Amino acid sequence: MKNIYIIGVGLIGGSIAKDVKKLNPEITIHGIDKNKNHLEDALSLKLIDKKAVFDDLEKADLVIVSIPVDATEMLLPGILDNVSDDALVIDSGSTKASICKAVENHPKRRNFLATHPIAGTEFSGPKAALEGLFANKTNIICEIEKTAFKLQERALTIFKIMGMHMRYMNPEAHDKHIAYVSHLSHISAFMLGKTVIEKEKNERDIFDLAGSGFASTVRLAKSSPRMWAPIFKQNKSHVIESLDEYINNLSKFKAAMELDDFDFIFSEMENTNHIKQILNGIQ
Amino acid sequence: MKNIYIIGVGLIGGSIAKDVKKLNPEITIHGIDKNKNHLEDALSLKLIDKKAVFDDLEKADLVIVSIPVDATEMLLPGILDNVSDDALVIDSGSTKASICKAVENHPKRRNFLATHPIAGTEFSGPKAALEGLFANKTNIICEIEKTAFKLQERALTIFKIMGMHMRYMNPEAHDKHIAYVSHLSHISAFMLGKTVIEKEKNERDIFDLAGSGFASTVRLAKSSPRMWAPIFKQNKSHVIESLDEYINNLSKFKAAMELDDFDFIFSEMENTNHIKQILNGIQ
Repeated sequence: MKNIYIIGVGLIGGSIAKDVKKLNPEITIHGIDKNKNHLEDALSLKLIDKKAVFDDLEKADLVIVSIPVDATEMLLPGILDNVSDDALVIDSGSTKASICKAVENHPKRRNFLATHPIAGTEFSGPKAALEGLFANKTNIICEIEKTAFKLQERALTIFKIMGMHMRYMNPEAHDKHIAYVSHLSHISAFMLGKTVIEKEKNERDIFDLAGSGFASTVRLAKSSPRMWAPIFKQNKSHVIESLDEYINNLSKFKAAMELDDFDFIFSEMENTNHIKQILNGIQ
Repeated sequence: MKNIYIIGVGLIGGSIAKDVKKLNPEITIHGIDKNKNHLEDALSLKLIDKKAVFDDLEKADLVIVSIPVDATEMLLPGILDNVSDDALVIDSGSTKASICKAVENHPKRRNFLATHPIAGTEFSGPKAALEGLFANKTNIICEIEKTAFKLQERALTIFKIMGMHMRYMNPEAHDKHIAYVSHLSHISAFMLGKTVIEKEKNERDIFDLAGSGFASTVRLAKSSPRMWAPIFKQNKSHVIESLDEYINNLSKFKAAMELDDFDFIFSEMENTNHIKQILNGIQ
């Protein structure tokens, strides 16, 4: 591998760039981004060695696509058109069914690997890129059997050096489970933030009364709408299902409070305390 | 001050014990707790110097009440009955109206100071006690005018040495605001945890797919039901109001998704991103 192209030099693309550069200092990392400021930042932060455009992709050995999922769905067929027969194209989107569907019949489908590295922060852009962001994190890989053998191998070598654990799922199962453990958390945090901001017009009051518990619960409400609105759109049915169950559980909690059924409230919390054991495994 | 009594040697009581012991090594810290294991742990962890019982309170210069709010409401009048005319009794509960009401006509009302230190973790018990837990945190003080001048002064000296910032509110305003910035976050996290656990019967799947975002949003679901059920009960009307608004915001979000109104979804998130500035002030 000599020429790596990162399309979208933000938090994820920039962090991958930091990791792959370590693999081999001879590698040239080329950055493509429609946001010119991000591209300049990525260059001055040395995340990338050169700026590039889509027409240059024919020289790529590896292309990392780390842009919002609607842009991935739209641009991925053209990216595959542009690359050589030996190139590997990897996406990193938080939805998998729509993206896999967009290229299911593409003549270069075997050059593509659909992945979702479960890593990130609530920040975005090249300045948010972190070295080692992916170490000990899970990478969900979909439809690996549709990727050419030698390109599977190339991808796994990179992910192993990045320190990731591989999990194989089909795109539909990915989208269903991730709606619960990731997408719903974001909506929960955004609407908590909205509810509190609406109530507390005087921000100084929020600031003074809020503790670390609120900060932790609402943290994801800092996330980028440009990234998240397309995720919710692509995973619409699963997200609505999870949101429906969440609202239902909250409504039952509220109804129990109205009926002074604090035994129910107590047991709801006690049963959920079990999350401790589950969370112990998450870093 | 020579004799300090901590009633409830858990996370809060134990952490206060660590701080006040530093003030003056001559101080004797006495622990009272109905949980005998907690009392033994507090002794072996050196959070307290001696075990004590309620009848000993006549010797107290300072009493810290750090037990669930229903127990505080029930026991506080008897604690005031037991202490001397020079003693200061401070509670640390997450609700203030019921507790202030429980002693409003008590002959020793001037010996009591109602406070809510905004500090804690999702853990509980003496082993969860942390030195410096209160440094740079807010302490909400209610009805300070009802506490004797010299006891106000004694309390403020202690809180200043603990590094806390004082904020004065009436109990009703405290309970209303704290429903939004603290109590609602706990319900949000508990119900998120419940929704995901119900869906993901196979815990290994949760564990593998969940990232740091889920862990952060659901963290408060580890909290103690013994502490939280009485808080929700005492602050019932404000908590129901906040929960109602939260459910309403989530339902509007879901309705917009069903209508494919992703412009609305985008602007809801963009407007809430403003929480960044507010959170920057919270440690």
